[in-house]
Amino acid sequence: MKQMQTRIRDFGISIGSLPTGPLNKITDVAGVTVGHCTVKEGPHQTGVTVILPSPKNPFSHKLPAASFVLNGFGKTQGLIQMDELGSLETPIALTNTLNVGLVHDALVEYMLNLCGRDHIPLFSVNPIVCECNDSSLNQIANRVITKEHVFSAIRSAEADFEEGSVGAGRGTVCYGFKGGIGSSSRQIELDGTTYTLGVLVQSNHGRSIHLTIDGKKAGTEILKKNPQAAFLSPTDRGSIIMIVATDLPVSDRQLRRIIKRAGVGLIRTGSYLGHGSGDIMIGFSTAYTLADAQAPAIQTIPMLNESKIEQAFLACAEAAEEAILNSLVTAESVTGTDGRTLHSLSEWLPTIL
Amino acid sequence: MKQMQTRIRDFGISIGSLPTGPLNKITDVAGVTVGHCTVKEGPHQTGVTVILPSPKNPFSHKLPAASFVLNGFGKTQGLIQMDELGSLETPIALTNTLNVGLVHDALVEYMLNLCGRDHIPLFSVNPIVCECNDSSLNQIANRVITKEHVFSAIRSAEADFEEGSVGAGRGTVCYGFKGGIGSSSRQIELDGTTYTLGVLVQSNHGRSIHLTIDGKKAGTEILKKNPQAAFLSPTDRGSIIMIVATDLPVSDRQLRRIIKRAGVGLIRTGSYLGHGSGDIMIGFSTAYTLADAQAPAIQTIPMLNESKIEQAFLACAEAAEEAILNSLVTAESVTGTDGRTLHSLSEWLPTIL
Amino acid sequence: MKQMQTRIRDFGISIGSLPTGPLNKITDVAGVTVGHCTVKEGPHQTGVTVILPSPKNPFSHKLPAASFVLNGFGKTQGLIQMDELGSLETPIALTNTLNVGLVHDALVEYMLNLCGRDHIPLFSVNPIVCECNDSSLNQIANRVITKEHVFSAIRSAEADFEEGSVGAGRGTVCYGFKGGIGSSSRQIELDGTTYTLGVLVQSNHGRSIHLTIDGKKAGTEILKKNPQAAFLSPTDRGSIIMIVATDLPVSDRQLRRIIKRAGVGLIRTGSYLGHGSGDIMIGFSTAYTLADAQAPAIQTIPMLNESKIEQAFLACAEAAEEAILNSLVTAESVTGTDGRTLHSLSEWLPTIL
Amino acid sequence: MKQMQTRIRDFGISIGSLPTGPLNKITDVAGVTVGHCTVKEGPHQTGVTVILPSPKNPFSHKLPAASFVLNGFGKTQGLIQMDELGSLETPIALTNTLNVGLVHDALVEYMLNLCGRDHIPLFSVNPIVCECNDSSLNQIANRVITKEHVFSAIRSAEADFEEGSVGAGRGTVCYGFKGGIGSSSRQIELDGTTYTLGVLVQSNHGRSIHLTIDGKKAGTEILKKNPQAAFLSPTDRGSIIMIVATDLPVSDRQLRRIIKRAGVGLIRTGSYLGHGSGDIMIGFSTAYTLADAQAPAIQTIPMLNESKIEQAFLACAEAAEEAILNSLVTAESVTGTDGRTLHSLSEWLPTIL
Repeated sequence: MKQMQTRIRDFGISIGSLPTGPLNKITDVAGVTVGHCTVKEGPHQTGVTVILPSPKNPFSHKLPAASFVLNGFGKTQGLIQMDELGSLETPIALTNTLNVGLVHDALVEYMLNLCGRDHIPLFSVNPIVCECNDSSLNQIANRVITKEHVFSAIRSAEADFEEGSVGAGRGTVCYGFKGGIGSSSRQIELDGTTYTLGVLVQSNHGRSIHLTIDGKKAGTEILKKNPQAAFLSPTDRGSIIMIVATDLPVSDRQLRRIIKRAGVGLIRTGSYLGHGSGDIMIGFSTAYTLADAQAPAIQTIPMLNESKIEQAFLACAEAAEEAILNSLVTAESVTGTDGRTLHSLSEWLPTIL
Repeated sequence: MKQMQTRIRDFGISIGSLPTGPLNKITDVAGVTVGHCTVKEGPHQTGVTVILPSPKNPFSHKLPAASFVLNGFGKTQGLIQMDELGSLETPIALTNTLNVGLVHDALVEYMLNLCGRDHIPLFSVNPIVCECNDSSLNQIANRVITKEHVFSAIRSAEADFEEGSVGAGRGTVCYGFKGGIGSSSRQIELDGTTYTLGVLVQSNHGRSIHLTIDGKKAGTEILKKNPQAAFLSPTDRGSIIMIVATDLPVSDRQLRRIIKRAGVGLIRTGSYLGHGSGDIMIGFSTAYTLADAQAPAIQTIPMLNESKIEQAFLACAEAAEEAILNSLVTAESVTGTDGRTLHSLSEWLPTIL
Repeated sequence: MKQMQTRIRDFGISIGSLPTGPLNKITDVAGVTVGHCTVKEGPHQTGVTVILPSPKNPFSHKLPAASFVLNGFGKTQGLIQMDELGSLETPIALTNTLNVGLVHDALVEYMLNLCGRDHIPLFSVNPIVCECNDSSLNQIANRVITKEHVFSAIRSAEADFEEGSVGAGRGTVCYGFKGGIGSSSRQIELDGTTYTLGVLVQSNHGRSIHLTIDGKKAGTEILKKNPQAAFLSPTDRGSIIMIVATDLPVSDRQLRRIIKRAGVGLIRTGSYLGHGSGDIMIGFSTAYTLADAQAPAIQTIPMLNESKIEQAFLACAEAAEEAILNSLVTAESVTGTDGRTLHSLSEWLPTIL
Repeated sequence: MKQMQTRIRDFGISIGSLPTGPLNKITDVAGVTVGHCTVKEGPHQTGVTVILPSPKNPFSHKLPAASFVLNGFGKTQGLIQMDELGSLETPIALTNTLNVGLVHDALVEYMLNLCGRDHIPLFSVNPIVCECNDSSLNQIANRVITKEHVFSAIRSAEADFEEGSVGAGRGTVCYGFKGGIGSSSRQIELDGTTYTLGVLVQSNHGRSIHLTIDGKKAGTEILKKNPQAAFLSPTDRGSIIMIVATDLPVSDRQLRRIIKRAGVGLIRTGSYLGHGSGDIMIGFSTAYTLADAQAPAIQTIPMLNESKIEQAFLACAEAAEEAILNSLVTAESVTGTDGRTLHSLSEWLPTIL
């Protein structure tokens, strides 16, 4: 049975003012599921996390999508085509830096099989693969991820997925604490209809002294109150991947504007977008499917009135901020390469509350 | 009475394979009109050309729009907001390099008056002003354009507008010949419906030896056959502005993809995108109006199936190529600053046909 | 005699950890000066602020420059060419939204005169003009700025310039308080040499409830402690312009990376990059002058080792945050259009310290 | 012994006016080598081509680099980081669309081994992998490329490499003829020093009726003269990858401007940048090496005077045009999937000369 995880709200900390969805996860956007495959074997602490945008074949049911690269020191794959065509046509996979090629290869294989099953000819496909560098805990050069890990992550995808030191978050470090996978969601109302926006992050960035929790300089306070935590203060070398899903009917341009505000949430937690940090946002909408080659030349789609976009900006900033904090407090301590241990923020947070 | 102008087709040269609209001008897109105000007084050879996207108030009836900067050595104004919001909210004005600020100011005044008339409060507006440097013929530093020239150009806007050495094209030079305003249009059919795409250019670029007409190295041939034309071969210092209108229902992203192909037409005429050339495309669609602040949160819009976009690319490339050639052959010779004369291609073209 | 202004440090609030320059202003970068011209006549509360990048003619001594548009709902002019060529060739002027065209025109005139004086032929020039919408206090539609205001601002440029409700900051509003011009600087050391980075802002953004001062939710606290301040909470409609100067030897690409971190400072003060906010950064370096047409084909320039860029990021984030706070506390209350008054944060800040 | 290949100049067709380098290939840029590994087994007609930017370890000797995406319907990997940091740190590999992930994985492995040999710790590396879709001739879904193919291509890298139906060009189709790998170079003189710019293409784009050779509508003429060639006229589904090397001392921004002109060469051969075509340019300069983390904070580099960049634009446009034509005439006919044969342009070209 799945264990309940202690999230940031369980510490009495509520981010922002908008209501969350039922799970307070990206999967509050109907149809979205998330799966992990975790590797935890001595010096190998890494994994794969996948976001399935819908239960349908994503190649035959392409969704509007966009990316925003806030800092481009990263190896994310697939954004050129996503931005040219404004569409997503595969699951999104997250892993470690030196396994992106292999995971890309696995997604191609997965899509060939899926389209084969659905009798859809497939000669070209654009997988989206993102990464963080987990070499603090993971013997990254051994590149232990296999295709089977990717397929396993996809098979395990579900709505009520786990957060923390799992999947692609197994080996990450965030503000000197154990980082990982975190998620959150927000609901907004427009003309009486409720829409949902959710964020999932793979957190691997920041310096301890910068960690900010709902405005409080938590990193500095923890170091002050816990002199034995002096080890917590590395330089910022990491990255953060932020995946945004929504059921708002938006164009790819509007999506790009919205997901850019995930950077607001990121900065609120203390990031200054360090040089070595690949800070990358990817978003998609489930509100409509893009017409395929067999469809009529003109399709009719719903589109958000631009002058009503403000709430979506707030929702994205809040959900991103909370997703990062959730990644920190749900991540259990992990010991990896060279016996190094990264500790969970959940151990230290009570000392300053 | 308006004089019929001799256009490139009148020389027996047909560009591309798609049919043109009735006027073979940008104004074949229903609702679009174009007006000029021309200054021709000795060393002052310059002017203003405006494109009105529709007969309606463009601020209260915003159209989807996009820009593409192929070479950014230019002073075009208004693209930041156009690209952020994907919309056009004023007429588009063309003029000379050192008068863009003044023309911007005039468009603000025009919009304040227009919105005042329509009882629309206006605190912010984003005029689009483009320019070419006409200092070869025009004593540009005297900056002779006035607001009244802009208002006059707007008032004179019509469907069957003049091309050549008029308006903002009065002082331009193109491939060493007299440049100017030129236009062309194409029709495409999708699912039985006919759509129109039109291009208007302000041509001011290129070296004589590079001029290419429907594949023929016309510039080189003319120089070979007419030794007395040796004066025709300046360096490339100019720019080109290319305005694209269409009634295709496209998103701003699709528009950007389409107008990028105006660069194909440009290069087919011989340009290599010289260093000093501001090569700038701006496009808008008249197919739908963007919802305003009073409208519901979600609007329904028609959108082109991406897999049917190919014809629009071809249409844009062909219309752009023909618009440039029309600007060249309709432009009458002009004598300006220091008594310098730039000659019409129409004088030389017959020598190589 | 100039009156000393009370800045955020005078309230005992120090932002970040890096040392400031002597003036703690953008003018700590040697050669940079700032001038204002302020209009304060009843319903007209507006003005012009100029940043002169160096005492030399900026056209004949072009500096490396870059821009970053974080949110593009704005009318800033000149960025296309700045980004194509990576250079700045005029002063940078700030004003209100509906006067950008006129101020552009004035800068052209100024440059023509300056180059005339220096015997430099000028046929093309790319002024940089930025704006915020000051229509809350200023009867913006009357467009009261004249060219003479621009020339006067340039003439008055000095190192120890005033902040607050002056120049282009006269009519702005920031987090519901009176906004304005603010500045700050930071010093960093690389291999034993001290470099300076300074920021100047025109602040006109944000909602009162979001105002954050060094992590403290100041806006919310002020509203809680001062029920009579309920009027302070407008929606976010504004913009912010952030000008960054440095003497670090950086390429335009590196500059863009650095000025992007001004957005970190912005978000730390509480912004979520509201829909209507043109959030625009422009930066230049005084470390070297770009070769002109008469110079040899290859010049030798100093360039920052990319792996040492981190401190510049921190410096930019800190200086931007402090510049915004300085704009708030130095801004005196202003009464404008319809007798509306915007109050200085300096009146309320003591209530929560 | 290597067989001399018949190139476009051997047909009496000279492109442009600038002189070529000794080999008239990208490898005229000193230090650049190119290697192929070709798969030709029945329905599997594909391969790998690599460009080694220098004989040194590219990770410890990073070169200035830039990319330009003219049409983004493609899966090229590594551009996000290349554009953020302006640098190249691995060989550039070309292959087919569905093997980019695997080739990426192979480049990671190669770099780990190389850096291991050189005692350079490697935790993160950014391979550049480009692709064209060769599914017309190659049973692409079988994804027959292996890591060993990549290593073999690297091992075989040399200056006087083969063109045509080899390596990543084995299965490509261009203007309905057999496409492939092609190359060309140009020399320019600045202040008495000779600089070289070279282009290598993987050509896989265009419709037969559009093929243009030095202005001549060759595709249309061939179809007219050779009715039996009616099979030559497919739709445009392909892509083109254009790699540009130079020893000009340029910044990454200048490089981006230069490689953009490879698009001029592309369009001169008849492309209209079809919807399905990933038209992607990547460039690097060998003129200087970027400082590494151990180097001083400030390095001194040579940089091209922007006002002298024109010749580099011309060189890039000419070399790109000729590289495409070389890819066509050197490509031998290939029979692949379903017994389909794509014929060499060299068979038909004589019919119209």
